[in-house]
Formats: sequence, C-alpha cells, structure tokens
Amino acid sequence: MPPYKLVSRESKPDNTVVQVGDCLIGGKTPVVIAGPCAVENEEMMVNLACRLKRMGVRMLRGGAYKPRTSPYSFQGLGADGLRILAEAGRVAGMPVITEVTDVRHLSEVCRYAHMIQIGSRNMQNFGLLKEVGRVGYPVLLKRGFSATLEEWLLAAEYILAEGNQQVVLCERGIRGFETYTRNIFDINAVAAVKNISHLPLIADPSHGTGRRELVLPVARAALAAGADGLMLEVHPAPEHALSDGPQSLPPGDLAVFMEELSGAGAGRRSSRASA
Amino acid sequence: MPPYKLVSRESKPDNTVVQVGDCLIGGKTPVVIAGPCAVENEEMMVNLACRLKRMGVRMLRGGAYKPRTSPYSFQGLGADGLRILAEAGRVAGMPVITEVTDVRHLSEVCRYAHMIQIGSRNMQNFGLLKEVGRVGYPVLLKRGFSATLEEWLLAAEYILAEGNQQVVLCERGIRGFETYTRNIFDINAVAAVKNISHLPLIADPSHGTGRRELVLPVARAALAAGADGLMLEVHPAPEHALSDGPQSLPPGDLAVFMEELSGAGAGRRSSRASA
Amino acid sequence: MPPYKLVSRESKPDNTVVQVGDCLIGGKTPVVIAGPCAVENEEMMVNLACRLKRMGVRMLRGGAYKPRTSPYSFQGLGADGLRILAEAGRVAGMPVITEVTDVRHLSEVCRYAHMIQIGSRNMQNFGLLKEVGRVGYPVLLKRGFSATLEEWLLAAEYILAEGNQQVVLCERGIRGFETYTRNIFDINAVAAVKNISHLPLIADPSHGTGRRELVLPVARAALAAGADGLMLEVHPAPEHALSDGPQSLPPGDLAVFMEELSGAGAGRRSSRASA
Amino acid sequence: MPPYKLVSRESKPDNTVVQVGDCLIGGKTPVVIAGPCAVENEEMMVNLACRLKRMGVRMLRGGAYKPRTSPYSFQGLGADGLRILAEAGRVAGMPVITEVTDVRHLSEVCRYAHMIQIGSRNMQNFGLLKEVGRVGYPVLLKRGFSATLEEWLLAAEYILAEGNQQVVLCERGIRGFETYTRNIFDINAVAAVKNISHLPLIADPSHGTGRRELVLPVARAALAAGADGLMLEVHPAPEHALSDGPQSLPPGDLAVFMEELSGAGAGRRSSRASA
Repeated sequence: MPPYKLVSRESKPDNTVVQVGDCLIGGKTPVVIAGPCAVENEEMMVNLACRLKRMGVRMLRGGAYKPRTSPYSFQGLGADGLRILAEAGRVAGMPVITEVTDVRHLSEVCRYAHMIQIGSRNMQNFGLLKEVGRVGYPVLLKRGFSATLEEWLLAAEYILAEGNQQVVLCERGIRGFETYTRNIFDINAVAAVKNISHLPLIADPSHGTGRRELVLPVARAALAAGADGLMLEVHPAPEHALSDGPQSLPPGDLAVFMEELSGAGAGRRSSRASA
Repeated sequence: MPPYKLVSRESKPDNTVVQVGDCLIGGKTPVVIAGPCAVENEEMMVNLACRLKRMGVRMLRGGAYKPRTSPYSFQGLGADGLRILAEAGRVAGMPVITEVTDVRHLSEVCRYAHMIQIGSRNMQNFGLLKEVGRVGYPVLLKRGFSATLEEWLLAAEYILAEGNQQVVLCERGIRGFETYTRNIFDINAVAAVKNISHLPLIADPSHGTGRRELVLPVARAALAAGADGLMLEVHPAPEHALSDGPQSLPPGDLAVFMEELSGAGAGRRSSRASA
Repeated sequence: MPPYKLVSRESKPDNTVVQVGDCLIGGKTPVVIAGPCAVENEEMMVNLACRLKRMGVRMLRGGAYKPRTSPYSFQGLGADGLRILAEAGRVAGMPVITEVTDVRHLSEVCRYAHMIQIGSRNMQNFGLLKEVGRVGYPVLLKRGFSATLEEWLLAAEYILAEGNQQVVLCERGIRGFETYTRNIFDINAVAAVKNISHLPLIADPSHGTGRRELVLPVARAALAAGADGLMLEVHPAPEHALSDGPQSLPPGDLAVFMEELSGAGAGRRSSRASA
Repeated sequence: MPPYKLVSRESKPDNTVVQVGDCLIGGKTPVVIAGPCAVENEEMMVNLACRLKRMGVRMLRGGAYKPRTSPYSFQGLGADGLRILAEAGRVAGMPVITEVTDVRHLSEVCRYAHMIQIGSRNMQNFGLLKEVGRVGYPVLLKRGFSATLEEWLLAAEYILAEGNQQVVLCERGIRGFETYTRNIFDINAVAAVKNISHLPLIADPSHGTGRRELVLPVARAALAAGADGLMLEVHPAPEHALSDGPQSLPPGDLAVFMEELSGAGAGRRSSRASA
C-alpha cells in the first residue's frame, strides 16, 4: 500500500479543482500561467502582464525571492519585487504567483500573492510545507530535482495533512545524464500522477527542457498526457533576461501558441474522455 | 560543432521518409507499429496480425531472437519465430519488423523481415551497425538505456556512413532513479531529435513506461511532441504473455486508441504546422 | 573559471582544520563521528555515548528534528532530543552534532550542539545557509541527493560568504538507477573535493550505501581516497531502531573497526604523503 | 531469491582465482593491469611494456579493435594492433589483454591475447557472451554504463552457464548527472560484488573518473573496498594520446604508486581479514 493517503484517488476519487481568483486549475480547460523568471522592473512587468492577459494567460508568475545556486548571482528584488508583481497583476487583472523560499517570508508573500510556489529546492523543506499547509493559500508544489513520485506526493501530503487541500503539483523536469537539455521532463510522471492523485498538475516545460525551441513541443505533449495547465517563462527580450534567458519564450511565440491552444482545447478534453 | 554530419538537418534539411512496403514513416500521417513482445505461436500471431491490420496498424512487430537479461529467461523462438512472424505479416498484408541481436543472424533476419530493429542493448554494437548499414534494409535504431542524444545520433551516423539512409530512430525511455515506472520516457528527446535530424522518429511508450495504464497517455504526448509514429506492445492476453506482460495493451484498448488517432491525425499535423 | 571563490584552494592553498571541542577535523588523524540516526531515549544515548567514547569516537551524532519523507513517520523528539543528546555528550565527554532543518530552530540547536548539520534536503535552503553563516558555529554541510560538485561547493560558499569559515563537507551518496544500494557513494567526489577545496571532508557510508555489510568497506575506501573522517550510524539494537536500522552498525562491529583504524591511521597518512 | 546462480557465493563460497599466465587474479595480492587505451605503434608498446613490467605491472592492456562513439574517430589498428600487443607482451614477459567487440573477431583475438575483455557497450551482447563462454579463455567483463548489479552479474552468468568459470568482473564507473567527472565510480558495487559473488573484481579508475588527478586516489579506495586489482590507462605522453589522454597516467606517476602498493599490499590483506 502506498504511504500517502490524502493525496490519493482512493481517499478522493474526483478531481480537485483549485481556484485562484477567477482561474480554475484542474477544471475542463487547461490554464496557462506565464511571466518572467524574475521580476526585474515595474514597467516591464506591467506591460508584459497586460500583453499576456490579452493572449489568454490566466495567472502571472514572477520571482521576487530567487533561490540561486551561487551567492554571487542576482538574488531577486525581494520585497520590491513582490510589490511590483502584485501591481502588474492588479493592472492586468490577473492573480499572481511567486515563490517563497524561506518560512520567515511567508506572511509577506501572502500579502501580495494569490498563490504560493514551493520550488524544487524546497520540496522537502518540511517546516515550510507545514506552515504553507496552515495558511490556507493555494500552493503550487514543484517536484524536487531528483524526487521520486512517492517523495513528491508525500511532500504534498504534508500540506494536506495540515488542512490545506488547495495544492497543485508541478512537474518541472528531473535530473539525468543528458547534457543537451537542462533537465529530463518526466512525461511519465504527468500521466502517473493524474492516475494516482486527485490533485491538479501543471507542467513547466521551460525548466523541463531549458531550451526555448523545445518548450512548446513539450508543452503540447504535457497537455496530451493529461496535464491541467502550463507554467511558461516569458520575457520581452530573452537575450537580456537576468536569469533563465535561454529557456524564456518571446511574447510573440507564446501568442501563436495561445491561439493554437484556444482552438484545440475542447478537442483535447473530448479526445481524452474517449480513451 | 556537433560531431555527427549525415544525420543532421544541416546536411539534409528536408524530412527523410522511410518506406517499408506501403508504410511510410516520416510522412504526413503518424504510423502505428504493433505486436507482441515475442512471437509465441503461429495461431496467436496470425489472429492478432489480422486484428491489428483491421484497426489501422501499419506494421507488425514480434521478437524472434530476444535479448534477455537472464540466461534462464525465455529467449525467443529463433528461426521458427522469424518464419511465424513473416507468415502472420503475409496473411494480414503488413510488413514485419523484428530485432537482430547478432551479426551472424543478419542475413537470415533479412530473408523474413521488411525492417530490422537494433535494440537498446546493441545501440553501440558497432560491427552490427556497420553490417546493417551495408545490407540496405530499413532500420529502426532504438536508443540505448543511457545513451545521450549525441551518442544515439552518432550510432545512426555509423549506419548512414555505410550508405544506408533508411534509418528510423526510436525513443524508448532512458534509465533514471524513478522506480514507479520502468524507464523515463524522454519526451525532450523526441522534440530535440526532430529539430536536429531529418530522420523519422518513432516512440515506444510500452518500454518507455513499463505500465499499461500509462502507455496511451504517453503515446499521445509523443505524437504531440512531433513523433512520426508509435511502436506498441499488444498481446491478446497480457497476463499470460511470456515477456513484457505488464506493459502490453490488450487489443481492445488499442482499437479505441486507433479510432481516436484516425480522427485526430490530420488536425495534429495542421496544428503543428501553425506553430 | 569556477564560480566558487572562498571555498577553493586558489583562495586558500592550505587545508582548513575545523575544531569542535577537542576534535580536529581536517588534521593529521581521521576522526570518527558516530551515533544513532535519531535520539530515541536518554538511557540508550548515555550508554551508547560512553561506549563510543571508549572506542575512540570523537563526536556524538543524533537527530532530534528529523526530516522525514512521510508526515506519518517518526519525526524525532525535537527539543527533548536536543537536551538528551547534549546530556549524553556531556557525560561521555564528547562534543555533539545534530541537524537543523528549520531556520527558526537554529538558536535552540546552537544552545545544545557544538556543531550544526545541514542535511541533504536543505543543501540549497539558502536562507538557512546564510543564517548558519552568521552564527559562527562549525557546520557540517551534506551534499544534496543530486547536487553536482559545483552546486555543493557553492552551497558552502554561501556560508563562507557570510563570514563563517568553519565548514566541513559531507559526502553521503547520490541518487542513481541502482536499487541494490540506497544511494551511490560518490568516491570520485571525495578525491575531487580534496583537490578543489581546502575544506575538510567527512564521508557518510551509512547513508552512502544503506546496507550494513557495505558500510565498513566503503568507510575504508573513503579514507583511502582522502576523506578526513567518517560519520557512522550506530545503534545498540539496529533491528529495533526507529529509523535507518538496515544501515546502522551494532557497536561491536564499530569497535573492531576503530581498532583497525587506530593501527592503520599513521600509515594511511604517510602513504598518502608519498603519492 | 536473486536470479543469478553460478556467479553467487551460495553456489560457490570460496573466492575464484583466475590465472592468466603467471598472473593470479583474486589471490592474496592485488594485481595491476596497465597499458595505453589503444595500441598506437610497436616501438611505443614495447618500450612501455618493458617499463611497466619493471614496475611490477602483471598484465599489459591495449586496444586493437576500439569501440568508438563516432564513426569518424580513430578506430584502432585492428589486426596490426593485436600483433603489436602480443609482441610487446612477449618481449616484456607479460600476458596481454585486449577487447573483443565483434563475435567474428573472437578467434583472431584468441590467437594473440591471453585474456579477453568484454567492454561496457557489449555487456549485454549476449551472442558474444555465449561464444566467449565456449572458448574457455579468461574473460574480463566490464560493467555496462547503466547496468544494475543484477544485470551485470547475469551477464557473467551467461558466460559461466556455457562452462567458462574464468570470469573477472570490472567496475569502470556508471553514468550519472555529474559532469565534473566522466563517470561515477561505484565503490558500493566493489564492496557489494565481493559479498555476493565468488568472482574476482578489478577496478578501472581511469574510466571511472576520467581525470588523471583522481585516478590514484580512487585506485586506493577500490583496493581498500576489496577490489582484487586495478586496470589503469598509462601513456608515455598522455597529451598526445590518440584516445583517453585526459585520464591516462604518465609512467612516472604509476611507478610511484606501484612502490606504495608493494609496501602496503600485505597490510591491506591482513587488515581486511580482521574486519
């Protein structure tokens, strides 16, 4: 018997739908969350947010507290970044999501964001998971770099066990021997998690591939395998991005994809129903 | 500069289409190759082949010389298996593909099969690759368990360098730390190979997942990412299969999927063209 | 040029020696840190500590706040565990080390422990790394499950960049495809880190192998590759341990090994010097 | 119950000792096999062989048929390489080992070599394993890039099942996410195989690390974990080697190590006996 309980379909057969503002994750229509890796300045964020909103993007992402491998890399704008992100979301009329990396920032992040992201490096930061379980905010829980499915689901179990059911899982690629791509996007995990758990699942092909030209093919694949939505890194000038430039889409590419998606959405769901 | 030449789009920008009988791999329509892991007996093979043909399957697979991890496992029917496979293909009116594991079997396999499969364990059996490059038969080259994209493409380069252009690549999952699935189906590799190379690519979600319930979601994903077709293990009674039962589909499940596919095929290709 | 600075031998050619009580890590003699995975009760801890001290163990380990994959597993005794650990160390006359998993526990842990352990799951908990860098306590930094050498050294760099030079690295095995062992103990990393960095390195073959019968052979290997010491899980009755029983040594096995080590220690160092 | 039989200590509790000329592998003294990655020319081979012999090296290695990832890389001298290798061994008074990559070369290789090497890429080339099992020559079986212990032992089982007991296992590193080293030398596997199997085990830290400065520390580690010997790549001018230069030792470094080893050998064995 698997060691997780509350996250499994045995305990709750129906799909959980997580609502963030007017954005439903896990419902009939796949949702797209988009934005830059890091909040860089207010003008860029507001302009980009408005443009994304017009394309049909449903939630705005942007990092304020960035977990960076090197202490010498850009660490994000912190509290200023939170304020800018919230303002951009307000102007564009979209809920916003940002990562919390430290339990001491949680209440501040909750003041500005509508959804909290737990990043890969903190998937087993159990103190943070428990606190996030108590605040009752919707949570996006990214899979750790080398977390097994069981470990990932048990991390979600920590949040649910504290009483917070509003959890969305996010597959963002795992670590492997391949060097051509930044990570291995684990498409098996998308299909498996949708079988095992009632929780919604979002795919992050930006981190999952690390290469701009692969993001959209893998995005399509994730939706075809059953993902409930996508999180995509977008930057108005990827070549000048302060972080994750090589995997960021220019807005024009995303616009074309959003049109493709709006045309295909209903078809996707009905074709899955027939399987 | 990448170390491969003949397999790259720089050397040949247009997609290569590999023809096996009346089956075109790499053309406008995705193809499905299906059959049991191993040829077990003639009656089963002929019945199954006819049933698969009626569903729209375009090529019959079946192992005669099976590379098995243990010397004590069923090793396949050998020459008898080849004969049965050829007969089943003839009755059903489909070309057949089977694996060659030993350079000494090559001429015998060529007598019976229309396409030769190089399995993952032999991806870097360079003597075999060179011989296969010389016989001028269409070849399906599976990716090794832990081969990088570059190693895989260089293995194909060995075949092309001998003068045989009729090579189809097959992504079948790579090895990782996850134990829930048999392998990690590398969806990034599907998208990447289609960018880098003009060769057609087939996805094998049966080995790529190792679990029946994940085969079709991952099959859909592979096509969405740009795969030119699928290779699927099917068995009339998976619970009694002599090998690979847990990942084999019953024919009824495949029939439903084939209908879904025939309805969606044109749409898939046009949606890709717009991206 | 590598992205780390303060941890590298370029910035400091001589070996750093970290002193914890009278225990010198990185000096001429390899040190052994030992104790149970988790503090379970006071009698056991005091008895075991005295026994370990007599064998030549130089520091006592024991988990009070345990990071556990499942929320339903034993989570450690918390503050009571800290108190018991400190008492056992005091009675036996040894400094003690324990893990801190949450930045909010740091000052409490510093009250009881002489050295702070950052576990694998928190190797990139950058807020915690920075705080640990500020408290000025000796730190043992375990390598993350799938951290590259560069990521591990950069995590140490976070601590040094805050002004704390008292950092010891701990190789504890990485994640791979092998299922026979719990992890892959990365012996290459032991040799490489000693080349790249001036920081001391401790090997943890208990987690590195996950199997009792492999712990001592791999411990010998780590010392032969240049490790400055060992951290070993020991339990008076491994079959009844609340966690990590299968990889815990019974005290008798450790006693034999400690004798072997005291006989070989000088020889080891001189043989290394001649290489 | 494990699926292997003949290779396990259950079927044969005592260590197997494989004799090649006057070189005993698996006996009381660890043996060193050394030589260049590839045979390049006769003068170099004869000079190097004589120098290695004087240091205490017991067997000469050198590749004639080289399995190379790219068809455009140097493929070895083939039959000429075999002849040169045999001549160098004859002059120096050492048995020689070389790799066979193709079943059709087996009888030719047996004419020149005293021990046959099966390389990592051919670990599951079952036709080759069976033939090697029938010729009755001593065999060195390298572990595949991503072979589990079970798969490796079952590959050896193929050879023993044909009646050839003269099998030596060779750990040469496995594939992982780390890019600093070429492979992850699996020290756990060294200890585990010596527990599970009666077959001798040789370590190849040249391929296991891929970096010259790590070869000898990892060599020491492998012996400390129980390996019965080492296979080391040596080249008189590593910077000009046609293959594997960065991991080849210059002869002077090996000479120092061989002296260290001859002093420590007896001690190593007796310390193991006490554990």
